[in-house]
Amino acid sequence: MSGRLIGVGTGPGDPGLLTVKAVRALGDADVVAWFAKAGRRGNARATVEGLFRADAVELPLPYPVTTEIPVADPRYGAAITGFFVEAAAAVEAHLAEGRTVAVLSEGDPLFYGSYMHLHVRLAPRYPAEVIPGITAMSGCWSQAGLPLVQGDDVLSVLPGTLPEAELTRRLIDSPASVIMKVGRNLATIRRALAGAGKLGRAVYVERGTMEQSQMTPLAAKPDDVAPYFSLVLVPGWEDRP
Amino acid sequence: MSGRLIGVGTGPGDPGLLTVKAVRALGDADVVAWFAKAGRRGNARATVEGLFRADAVELPLPYPVTTEIPVADPRYGAAITGFFVEAAAAVEAHLAEGRTVAVLSEGDPLFYGSYMHLHVRLAPRYPAEVIPGITAMSGCWSQAGLPLVQGDDVLSVLPGTLPEAELTRRLIDSPASVIMKVGRNLATIRRALAGAGKLGRAVYVERGTMEQSQMTPLAAKPDDVAPYFSLVLVPGWEDRP
Ligand SMILES: C[S@@+](CC[C@H](N)C(=O)[O-])C[C@H]1O[C@@H](n2cnc3c(N)ncnc32)[C@H](O)[C@@H]1O
Ligand SMILES: C[S@@+](CC[C@H](N)C(=O)[O-])C[C@H]1O[C@@H](n2cnc3c(N)ncnc32)[C@H](O)[C@@H]1O
Repeated sequence: MSGRLIGVGTGPGDPGLLTVKAVRALGDADVVAWFAKAGRRGNARATVEGLFRADAVELPLPYPVTTEIPVADPRYGAAITGFFVEAAAAVEAHLAEGRTVAVLSEGDPLFYGSYMHLHVRLAPRYPAEVIPGITAMSGCWSQAGLPLVQGDDVLSVLPGTLPEAELTRRLIDSPASVIMKVGRNLATIRRALAGAGKLGRAVYVERGTMEQSQMTPLAAKPDDVAPYFSLVLVPGWEDRP
Repeated sequence: MSGRLIGVGTGPGDPGLLTVKAVRALGDADVVAWFAKAGRRGNARATVEGLFRADAVELPLPYPVTTEIPVADPRYGAAITGFFVEAAAAVEAHLAEGRTVAVLSEGDPLFYGSYMHLHVRLAPRYPAEVIPGITAMSGCWSQAGLPLVQGDDVLSVLPGTLPEAELTRRLIDSPASVIMKVGRNLATIRRALAGAGKLGRAVYVERGTMEQSQMTPLAAKPDDVAPYFSLVLVPGWEDRP
């Protein structure tokens, strides 16, 4: 009997935002695998504390690099590709033994998540299922009670790692936007929003749905210090019925 | 004691995709309100069958118009605004009596959902909470096992109701897109995708995560007949590690 691969979306941080299906899959898993910075447990693992079997095997998949090398640097690509190959092999070792492996994925697995790198390598050869998760952006706009898009509004999801000019152009071109991967890019993001005339609409959310969450109009935030788990919401919906 | 308003995201259709928090909120609700086409129960209501108390009051909120009048027609705006005012009053009557009202919302409540029209009217005066839901797009790309965006990819969410030229332009400008509100706009959407050179990448998903779900590369779909509950995925992620 062949093992099964399950990508489990764990949502933005509040364990109550796991789906019923995710909770069931965690309870059934033989192996629980999770990506994290080396030496850390990571957000997805923290969210599912107590939700899997005591006899399940934990398989940490520590990133070899995170923010030490810029993504554009060829050394980053080389390190990360090698890492995904090895991570897939580590998961496959369990699948080949017939075990069900749940791979945790912060938010939704196929939306900027590392799980996809395992999925494309293993799903052609093992039964695989993806359980969607509440995205960070949904968690954040829900916590803020901020309607994002309505009717014919376009929504752009923009990584904060984009060059300032491109960010500005896209912010101008889109009625509503979400800026992900804020962290050390907040000063650039703030300038792009100001350049697009949208700084006044922007809401900053840090660690959305987690206990230590913070939220403020970006214009009122006194500094440009932001953790990795933060994003900026720019709501559309200007002429609402 | 004042009542509480809760916007409950019910996800794309599979009841297993409700969050733990949504299930709890439904179990606690005194009143369960839901939007639907007049005379129908609607998708959100079908998803939560059996999940609320037998003694909970059901409050259907039937739309006065759906697709009979085009959205751009001033009569549509007038009818729909009057409707949201009345729907808010119907919900408020229960809140004023101290009841907890759960308003069902297909997918995520603040992402193109009708719930937001109640939220902006009632949240300033009553305790209100929004429980995020799995969006239709997450449900669809998970079912398809199709990674959508990665790294620095931009994602555009485009209503299929946009004019063809604008759709084409935005499809060209974005590495990845999701086209919502397909229904009767599928012929236009197909032309826009072809014009943008992306028809070959597009995947059509109908009633994602529901029992009767269908999914096919759009280029292989022989007709332009699509139900309201359908969308088109255009994945990015061309140079993956
Ligand atoms: C690699 S992406 C993963 C996105 C995730 N798969 C999802 O579905 O939302 C990481 C980025 O998501 C955002 N993020 C994740 N969790 C968050 C949270 N709880 N609050 C705010 N932003 C969060 C941050 O912008 C972070 O840089
Ligand atoms: C008014 S929007 C509501 C979106 C919803 N609030 C969400 O979070 O996804 C309705 C559109 O969502 C999409 N949709 C909703 N449920 C779907 C499903 N199960 N499968 C495919 N598309 C769906 C369709 O494009 C439909 O026209």
